[in-house]
Amino acid sequence: MFDSSVYKQRRQALREKVGHGLILILGNNEAPANYPDNTYKFRQDSSFLYFFGHSHPGYAGVMDIEAGEDYFFGNDVTMDDIIWMGPQPSVKDLAAQVGVEKSFPFDKLKEFIGKAISQRRPIHFLPPYRYDNMLLLEDLTGIRASMTKQHASVELIKAVVALRSVKEACEIAEIDKACNIGYEMHTAAMRLCKPGVSEQYIAGILDGIASSYGNMVSFATILTQNGQTLHNHDHSHLLEAGRLMLTDAGAESVTNYCSDHTRTIPVGGKFTSRQRDVYSIVLDCHDKALELAHPGVTYKSVHLEVCKVLAQGLKDLGLMKGDVNEAVAAGAHALFMPHGLGHMMGIDVHDMEDLGQCYVGYDDEIRPSDQFGLASLRMGRRLQEGFVITDEPGCYFIPALIDKWKADNMHKDFLNYEAIEKFKDFGGIRLEDDILIIPGGSRFTGEKHIPITISEVEQIMNE
Amino acid sequence: MFDSSVYKQRRQALREKVGHGLILILGNNEAPANYPDNTYKFRQDSSFLYFFGHSHPGYAGVMDIEAGEDYFFGNDVTMDDIIWMGPQPSVKDLAAQVGVEKSFPFDKLKEFIGKAISQRRPIHFLPPYRYDNMLLLEDLTGIRASMTKQHASVELIKAVVALRSVKEACEIAEIDKACNIGYEMHTAAMRLCKPGVSEQYIAGILDGIASSYGNMVSFATILTQNGQTLHNHDHSHLLEAGRLMLTDAGAESVTNYCSDHTRTIPVGGKFTSRQRDVYSIVLDCHDKALELAHPGVTYKSVHLEVCKVLAQGLKDLGLMKGDVNEAVAAGAHALFMPHGLGHMMGIDVHDMEDLGQCYVGYDDEIRPSDQFGLASLRMGRRLQEGFVITDEPGCYFIPALIDKWKADNMHKDFLNYEAIEKFKDFGGIRLEDDILIIPGGSRFTGEKHIPITISEVEQIMNE
Repeated sequence: MFDSSVYKQRRQALREKVGHGLILILGNNEAPANYPDNTYKFRQDSSFLYFFGHSHPGYAGVMDIEAGEDYFFGNDVTMDDIIWMGPQPSVKDLAAQVGVEKSFPFDKLKEFIGKAISQRRPIHFLPPYRYDNMLLLEDLTGIRASMTKQHASVELIKAVVALRSVKEACEIAEIDKACNIGYEMHTAAMRLCKPGVSEQYIAGILDGIASSYGNMVSFATILTQNGQTLHNHDHSHLLEAGRLMLTDAGAESVTNYCSDHTRTIPVGGKFTSRQRDVYSIVLDCHDKALELAHPGVTYKSVHLEVCKVLAQGLKDLGLMKGDVNEAVAAGAHALFMPHGLGHMMGIDVHDMEDLGQCYVGYDDEIRPSDQFGLASLRMGRRLQEGFVITDEPGCYFIPALIDKWKADNMHKDFLNYEAIEKFKDFGGIRLEDDILIIPGGSRFTGEKHIPITISEVEQIMNE
Repeated sequence: MFDSSVYKQRRQALREKVGHGLILILGNNEAPANYPDNTYKFRQDSSFLYFFGHSHPGYAGVMDIEAGEDYFFGNDVTMDDIIWMGPQPSVKDLAAQVGVEKSFPFDKLKEFIGKAISQRRPIHFLPPYRYDNMLLLEDLTGIRASMTKQHASVELIKAVVALRSVKEACEIAEIDKACNIGYEMHTAAMRLCKPGVSEQYIAGILDGIASSYGNMVSFATILTQNGQTLHNHDHSHLLEAGRLMLTDAGAESVTNYCSDHTRTIPVGGKFTSRQRDVYSIVLDCHDKALELAHPGVTYKSVHLEVCKVLAQGLKDLGLMKGDVNEAVAAGAHALFMPHGLGHMMGIDVHDMEDLGQCYVGYDDEIRPSDQFGLASLRMGRRLQEGFVITDEPGCYFIPALIDKWKADNMHKDFLNYEAIEKFKDFGGIRLEDDILIIPGGSRFTGEKHIPITISEVEQIMNE
């Protein structure tokens, strides 16, 4: 947790931006896995962490804009809680730690919200994504659980996005820590990647590193020799010599700030000539993004420039043809890269995704696209100092997609299907780093850079 | 997964036991951690696993008792799913793998249940514990989400408990596998337990072992030098020489069968004389339970006999006094062991806890108690061959509880508070193994027994 002044300033800024009414920020509760008391590792709501700091279940925070007061709701522990869970600070003390003077038992929240509703004051809340909180909102507001998302406050969403998008120095320090754990995870994967080892074994070790040094993985690890599947959580295979292992994995720091890196490495420690060709194109794309990302530039334009590097590289390999600019404008390259260049990162690995990508990654100036591929770009808008974003180009050969596009004669002026057919056993490559937008440019986050050039990767794998 | 015949037989047996109406078994869905698409590792509902086998989100199964037919509901994947998650078998094929001939898209379930309701047929469902499934039940049945638990079918609960309580040979083999992973976890903890190492570091390594060799931990690992807190998930301390480290941890096998073991070991590798005294008492309790547990005996009686061993040992140490049988009958020993001797274990680490402890651990003959301590005994009823239960006595010195009982003059004829005061810095000891009830007795589960005697523990810690 940061100093209480950090949270006070953030709430002050939020109250000013929203302007009127009550702001209700619900914390998360324990999430049952297979019965009520067998819960997953607790993960606090990220906006609650941002404004009210505490990572424990069962709390809610309220900001009364007109009164200029903040309130913290939660229940003090009982003797039974102490026996099973140990002594805990009082709710009053917890509130004071984040600069809130007034605290109440949790069941007072209903009375509090009910009174404001009867006074016709607006109740601003964020879109719920946990079903228990949808039911709680139904109980507090009378809005049916299934409709609570639609009743979320756009003013509040926009205000939260404006604040959380620009990372404070204390937040950047936490992201750097998470990236340091990511370094340990990815270099461990490089050392363990040998023919005959199971994907699950290595993925498990990475889970352990994330848990030992931080909080937990920032998302379910993707670790597979079937990298052509973008979010592959199937780890059931034994690694085979000659294939590529794609690892997309990150950690959360103790305070829940995230890292997110991808590396793709040759099982056995040596890239084949064909793997080097495609890898070099993806690495060029990755470097191009870092080169272009600086304050004032839209990330959509960076995405499109990177796609041109991809298309040019694939044209040089004989897989694409025609004019590169026209091919990218038409979306032909999306056969190989059906996803976007990157997303915001912070307390969430896809930062603020619960608030709606149209507010987080887009704005009045830059609107989302519905073109296949570009539609999956999560972050399009103009970059500002303090943004942390991912730079993650990829190149995949997805047999089912190739078959479909070929059968439909899709983009046949730009795609050389005969040559592409020969790559259907290739798999996929993705390379991802997290970058911080700084004055005049960008920098990688974390202290050490995970090996990424062909020689760096081959060196660590053969140490 | 087991052979399709296993699931067919189980469903046949269930239909016969319930006798009439429709049985609806909802699978689990993905559970969001901090935004909708950032989900925890998927955990299927255990009863769905038992009757319909598949460990994927988005399915439901229905058994029509009168028609003698079973139905499998789920959606086939789209091209978008294939790009992001890889090719998947069709729902029809998945259904066939568990011996179900008829499958339908998920949205047909509402029509199906609605028709049965309009025909006034009973719809049997289990108590939901995931809030999304409460909302789904509301949508399917018209019962408010918050009341769906109360509308669960007691006939179905009793029938499921009767079947799942007695483990089949194929299930015991899976529990043995989970216990083998537990062996790796606990022996790793013994080797890593040194002064200056952080609790979180070791807990993280255990998470990694569970994930590498199985599915995940069977519950959030308890690993702490503050073992006096029964379910301590705070791992923020560095281990200090002279203290005890309590590790209560288990794994799920790939097919989600569980293990659950506890060991308490001396940081630094050598028990002190005082630690040996208390440890020996708890080990005697543990051995007593194994000796007494056999078919036909109630586990409540085993619990009470074990409490007498505890009370006698503490009396010999000068911490308790008076008649041991009277002390246990009065519940005085519960100051030191406020929990029960054990619980059922299977596809859940607290097996079927979602169905209600009064059905799983008790029956018409053996009823739950409300005495402090005994009230926390999860398993009281008569043991049968094929039951898998935990044997987990403990002895704790909980400062807040000691202070409260002393101030209230609780059980002062049986408790020597002056002597107990000197143990307030002791911590706690728990020793736990999983046992299978076999003809004439019981056996430990797993191939290798985790070191437990004082000499075994000191030996592995000093290797």
